[in-house]
Amino acid sequence: MPADTSAPTDPVALTAELIRCPSVTPEEGGALVLLQERLEAAGFTCFRADRNGIANLFARWGEKGAARTFGFNGHTDVVPVGDAAAWTADPFGAEIRDGRMYGRGATDMKSGVACFAAAAIDFVTQTPPEDGAVVLAITGDEEGDSTDGTIALLDWMAANGESMTHCLVGEPTCPTTMGEMIKIGRRGSMTAWFTATGKQGHSAYPHRAKNPLPAMARLVDRLASHELDQGTDHFDPSTLAVVQFDTGNDATNVIPAQCRAAVNIRFNDIHTGESLSQWLRREAQDVSRQFDILIEPRIKISGEAFLTPPGELSALVAKAVEAETGVTPELSTTGGTSDARFVKDLCPVVEFGLVGETMHQVDENVPVEQIPQLKAVYARVLKDYFA
Amino acid sequence: MPADTSAPTDPVALTAELIRCPSVTPEEGGALVLLQERLEAAGFTCFRADRNGIANLFARWGEKGAARTFGFNGHTDVVPVGDAAAWTADPFGAEIRDGRMYGRGATDMKSGVACFAAAAIDFVTQTPPEDGAVVLAITGDEEGDSTDGTIALLDWMAANGESMTHCLVGEPTCPTTMGEMIKIGRRGSMTAWFTATGKQGHSAYPHRAKNPLPAMARLVDRLASHELDQGTDHFDPSTLAVVQFDTGNDATNVIPAQCRAAVNIRFNDIHTGESLSQWLRREAQDVSRQFDILIEPRIKISGEAFLTPPGELSALVAKAVEAETGVTPELSTTGGTSDARFVKDLCPVVEFGLVGETMHQVDENVPVEQIPQLKAVYARVLKDYFA
Repeated sequence: MPADTSAPTDPVALTAELIRCPSVTPEEGGALVLLQERLEAAGFTCFRADRNGIANLFARWGEKGAARTFGFNGHTDVVPVGDAAAWTADPFGAEIRDGRMYGRGATDMKSGVACFAAAAIDFVTQTPPEDGAVVLAITGDEEGDSTDGTIALLDWMAANGESMTHCLVGEPTCPTTMGEMIKIGRRGSMTAWFTATGKQGHSAYPHRAKNPLPAMARLVDRLASHELDQGTDHFDPSTLAVVQFDTGNDATNVIPAQCRAAVNIRFNDIHTGESLSQWLRREAQDVSRQFDILIEPRIKISGEAFLTPPGELSALVAKAVEAETGVTPELSTTGGTSDARFVKDLCPVVEFGLVGETMHQVDENVPVEQIPQLKAVYARVLKDYFA
Repeated sequence: MPADTSAPTDPVALTAELIRCPSVTPEEGGALVLLQERLEAAGFTCFRADRNGIANLFARWGEKGAARTFGFNGHTDVVPVGDAAAWTADPFGAEIRDGRMYGRGATDMKSGVACFAAAAIDFVTQTPPEDGAVVLAITGDEEGDSTDGTIALLDWMAANGESMTHCLVGEPTCPTTMGEMIKIGRRGSMTAWFTATGKQGHSAYPHRAKNPLPAMARLVDRLASHELDQGTDHFDPSTLAVVQFDTGNDATNVIPAQCRAAVNIRFNDIHTGESLSQWLRREAQDVSRQFDILIEPRIKISGEAFLTPPGELSALVAKAVEAETGVTPELSTTGGTSDARFVKDLCPVVEFGLVGETMHQVDENVPVEQIPQLKAVYARVLKDYFA
């Protein structure tokens, strides 16, 4: 399809087309192929940065390595439908009912991708900047392991001399009202699994056994009772949630040889994955010594805390949000992890998108009127960035 | 097989035959059928006192209701194999290696049953007493709930006019050296299961969930750290063993709604099941309030503490032990619960058996030489009792 430089790109239609692509992680589902077609028609140079069966799309308009290269990041993959029978609409149908468009990815985040793609297409075709470049880095693996998604895109960019000077991630960021929240950082996330090993025995003769359970209970109590911090200027207090504690011992007259527990930590910029790992290991060692029970930790750091301090980028996005929605957005670091945690190693990154209330749920849906609003925010960001 | 009144019954072979019966509670596994065959061949009258799918065997030689009726009590059921891969011998193979016979039940307590059955068979066939009766009450449910085991046998005996005037339970009683301990009482035993219920949620937003795990860990820590008492004249200090703690939550990003834990208490005559139940309920309520998490206890009292004060029976058994092993046995109330807790309502009861070091463990085994020794003790008890 040749680019029609006169008509603006309809982000509602594009969202619907993307929802109709069944791109449940790790399936591409036609979503990136569709976007590539539209972007190439508008003059973008597109590359596929696929890795290990995951499809990733890199698109650039303008010169490689331009001094000002504005980037958008997002994903077209979606979480599974879940209980299909509970949906009142086809999860891949994009049905519009009572002003809402239904479908998996309606908010997370096919609407966001459609809006920044539409804004970028219109911007470069209708008011192309004299200098600079616009880049879109879109992955098919954000909801899965994320190991071959945005990371693969960034690896590919580094290998091919591609860059971004600032980046906006289009994830849904607003808790309940359009425009109310921009994310300028994210807490880190890590999980620690503990295995406590003692010696099995009869519960009538506890002195002949070595019971790992009281030791693990003490450790869990100590970890759960500990205040990690009281929050920082831009972050809420870090949290630790005990998520697992299991023995698998059916008998009540047997002291088990082993038990396991797991904690999940969401941490702010006071900590690093390493500093918390050291704390967890120290606590395990302390309790281990107290109870003479071997406690072994295994730790996985899913992402470090990061912050793009309030500045040019957040001011630019906040101004656009306020102009288009009438709402003054809060600069926040709350919520779950996102691919911004990878992009932040390349350039300043913030996140703005629509209301994410129904994401990952049955009957995920987006108020249709929010879609052109979001596109308008992205369009204004581009305009102001290159002004 | 007809009884051969000239050859003594080999208790080692009989132990091996019983080990080869896969009688994990509640399976009969052929063990009681085998014993009934041997006992009937020796002139015992046998009855099955089965209840609710549990097999129980009652065998009597001599007149019903004889003034002196010596009883043996024991069980042929065994605890599960546990980690089968960790065994170095077939758990149901009765392999003899380096002077030890391996198998589930080798010490607890197929050897004990084999020895009193062999002693009783030889006694009544070779030196039958002029007056009196010998009774064997053998159950297939001692390791399980015990609700349809020795209790069912005693109920059946009461209903059928059967009795015992003194009883010896053949459970393993010696901690490390053959002959060193007779049990004249037992601690009480009870189990408490706790269910903690909160509210499920995402681990990234713990303030929106109510995590039951830290509350349960605190409760378990409190219970496990508490000193119940320091012991009495005839009893060791009471013990509490945490035996279960389970969540069943596979996800690390989900705070579970519920978790469960269980503790097993062995208590001396300072306590009763009721006094301890009150303490457990108070502790659960305290922690429940502290954490605003519902914690519900379910308590089962398996047996109250009891004592057969030193007297005729304990003296008889002690004398036999000393004569056959050269060791002067201690009269003790240590260790786990046994069916003596039920028998004590019928007649004086003590317990004597071999070394129980490996019971319920992987590679449970019995030194082969201890088996004929144990049979000899039981034989001398019978001889002296009816002398």
